[in-house]
Amino acid sequence: MRRTLQHPARLVPLAFLGAVVIGTLLMMLPAARVEPGGTPFVTALFTATSAVCVTGLAVVDTATYWTGFGQVLLTVLTQIGGFGIMAMATLLALLVSQRLGLRSRLMAQAEDSSLRLGDVKSVLGRIALTMAGFEVVIAVIVGGRFWLGYDYSVGKAAWYGVFHSVQAFNNAGFALFSDSLVGFVGDPWICLPLTIGVIAGGIGFPVLFELFREIGRPSTWSTHTRLTVWGGISLLCFGFVSLLGLEWNNPDTLGPLGVGEKMLAAFFQDAMTRSGGFNTVDVGAFHSESLALSTALMFIGGGSASTAGGIKLTTFFLLAYVILAELRGEPDVVIGKRRIAETTQRQAITVALLGVGLVATGTFALLESTTNVSFEAALFEVTSAFATVGLSTGITPGLPTSGQLILVVLMFIGRVGTIAVGSAIALNTRRRLYRYAEERPIVG
Amino acid sequence: MRRTLQHPARLVPLAFLGAVVIGTLLMMLPAARVEPGGTPFVTALFTATSAVCVTGLAVVDTATYWTGFGQVLLTVLTQIGGFGIMAMATLLALLVSQRLGLRSRLMAQAEDSSLRLGDVKSVLGRIALTMAGFEVVIAVIVGGRFWLGYDYSVGKAAWYGVFHSVQAFNNAGFALFSDSLVGFVGDPWICLPLTIGVIAGGIGFPVLFELFREIGRPSTWSTHTRLTVWGGISLLCFGFVSLLGLEWNNPDTLGPLGVGEKMLAAFFQDAMTRSGGFNTVDVGAFHSESLALSTALMFIGGGSASTAGGIKLTTFFLLAYVILAELRGEPDVVIGKRRIAETTQRQAITVALLGVGLVATGTFALLESTTNVSFEAALFEVTSAFATVGLSTGITPGLPTSGQLILVVLMFIGRVGTIAVGSAIALNTRRRLYRYAEERPIVG
Ligand SMILES: [K+]
Ligand SMILES: [K+]
Repeated sequence: MRRTLQHPARLVPLAFLGAVVIGTLLMMLPAARVEPGGTPFVTALFTATSAVCVTGLAVVDTATYWTGFGQVLLTVLTQIGGFGIMAMATLLALLVSQRLGLRSRLMAQAEDSSLRLGDVKSVLGRIALTMAGFEVVIAVIVGGRFWLGYDYSVGKAAWYGVFHSVQAFNNAGFALFSDSLVGFVGDPWICLPLTIGVIAGGIGFPVLFELFREIGRPSTWSTHTRLTVWGGISLLCFGFVSLLGLEWNNPDTLGPLGVGEKMLAAFFQDAMTRSGGFNTVDVGAFHSESLALSTALMFIGGGSASTAGGIKLTTFFLLAYVILAELRGEPDVVIGKRRIAETTQRQAITVALLGVGLVATGTFALLESTTNVSFEAALFEVTSAFATVGLSTGITPGLPTSGQLILVVLMFIGRVGTIAVGSAIALNTRRRLYRYAEERPIVG
Repeated sequence: MRRTLQHPARLVPLAFLGAVVIGTLLMMLPAARVEPGGTPFVTALFTATSAVCVTGLAVVDTATYWTGFGQVLLTVLTQIGGFGIMAMATLLALLVSQRLGLRSRLMAQAEDSSLRLGDVKSVLGRIALTMAGFEVVIAVIVGGRFWLGYDYSVGKAAWYGVFHSVQAFNNAGFALFSDSLVGFVGDPWICLPLTIGVIAGGIGFPVLFELFREIGRPSTWSTHTRLTVWGGISLLCFGFVSLLGLEWNNPDTLGPLGVGEKMLAAFFQDAMTRSGGFNTVDVGAFHSESLALSTALMFIGGGSASTAGGIKLTTFFLLAYVILAELRGEPDVVIGKRRIAETTQRQAITVALLGVGLVATGTFALLESTTNVSFEAALFEVTSAFATVGLSTGITPGLPTSGQLILVVLMFIGRVGTIAVGSAIALNTRRRLYRYAEERPIVG
């Protein structure tokens, strides 16, 4: 155990690659596809990657293309992907916890740079329990609603409850309806539990764990938890108000809805950008402003060591504090009486700028792969893949193979890259043997 | 002198605001406009701001809207703006030179945190001499070409030479032809001198000064000069090859040209993105990929304390080194055996992210101001204004007043903001009285 964990940064991509390969092979089985014959390789690869990386982007209609077996496969792959991400990211955070100050909070033990097998088991068990707890409750409510409100048979209602609950908590976003959840735009019994699942899954285990223990005492929260919780809430409110205002009169989205439905739909769609991926209105019909806003929210993403993607809330808000400190001429970056380590600041800038570079390169490559796609739509779809959101303006199924492969690569790097890079950095930091003379180029 | 320089960060925006106000009033004089009656306020404000901020974006046709008097005004405003930027940015760099290590290089004297009047005069004189030198040589070559190659009268050729030479070295980009320089796409005697003017003006005085003295000894160059020179050259090559490849067959841009002309036009257009603003091909007809690439190059911009805009070459490449160091797990950011100060890294982050935020907000606002503009075109125009480039897909003249005012604000902040913010930061850094306990949130 200790040996494999000595190079955990290499372990994570390999584990995900293995899951994608096995998932692709299984999705290619004739039993997974409704029509006769096996699924083409690229379709299977795209779907398996999208499931394992909990993205939810689809090149085929999930509701009609896959058999029951295929949909169960999708559920399993999503669950494995979501659990894997949460577990690995949490364990890696623990491994570097000597520097993170996380270990003593999570494990109630002394700081130490190794992980005992018992610790690993205990963390994995708690994560599994947390996931199961949320998923069961949400499945019961949503399944119950399908049963009582829509006259589904008990079996079908249960399956639909489980499927969408797993998709929600794991922030994946596949749906068993051809138009995602557009048919339930005004139904709070469907929308709200799934929103709660998406938000809870997107908070991240370290924060969830701290909240379980200390929810009533915000003053004791770690800086990480504060940034995630208060940052997440403010972005949720900002996105909600903005989307509501921008789309209020759009005849193809919120326009035809009543006031209550408008609010529900705007809140749902807002929450889905970080990074649930369901939709109850047609995202492709959004105004340019709403698409741009959603793109920004998707890029920011959710909590660290969560099933959400993006550069993460902590990264975004930490950088905001860096800028504030810089504009005020303060030598230290201070958040709530805690000084943020300079190495952490450098990590945040690295994650954010690599994200910008990746999205820019991906958009460029996608535009090169086809002539049918606008810049705006390409940027949206690429950001959705990178941040493993799964929202779509509708262009993905029509992309050429090369374009779909670009999205596959983006989903994989977007999901695995930030964890791997982040932990590689934290674990491999070299000691400073000598220092060169300092120099200060003019910037700006 | 010392007194006004104690708050130089406040002086810069005020000086520019004053120049814009006076310029606007003068442009509104009936004598400046060909048609009877004075120029409308917004048109005069936009043009004066564009000239003083050396942007070159235009809401009216420079060639036919303005009288000779108006065009002379434009030249004077451009010259004042360009000189003002170079001078103020250089003086501010000197003021903070105790930290920059620039003073001993420029002034051959001991480091000191005040500026003597003699020093100021000497720096201003050298900048004026440098500008005049470049502008006269370029005006002679370009004017001579207009005279000998296009049968202009001596007087007209001289005026056209002076006008475009001033526009080139000051990186402004107004032209006395309705289609900018499209008529000269294959003429190296026009294109190359203007390109050299744009590049020289965009290098920045501190680097120009160092190059004058040490051009044969690159090993003695400061980190700032290295980043600017090598970074600038690599971006020039990258942009040239990319634009050439992307537009080679575009029937509306490079397609109809011969091989030599294609290369000249691609090089010219590449150099103009940082941030000359002339064009010899129709930028509005660029493929999406070329627009995206140009947008990125415009955002990066040219050298610090130069007539070019953008976040600057040093900012961009310094951040690239920060990421590299982070990925390699190195505790210090080292460029050529010099350690980059952590405060400088934080400045670079601040400049870059404020730039991203400003462009994003500006694009959003421009999309809100009108329904006729695509996201891609709005992003391009906003970046062009922020980075004071002046390239246009052609949407600016047709924008509503609110949209044009958004661009006015972006030009002003883009030009003045980076200098003011940069120096305010460098001058106002507070002393550290106590430090809070360190904390390291998880990022990514
Ligand atoms: K998702
Ligand atoms: K310009």
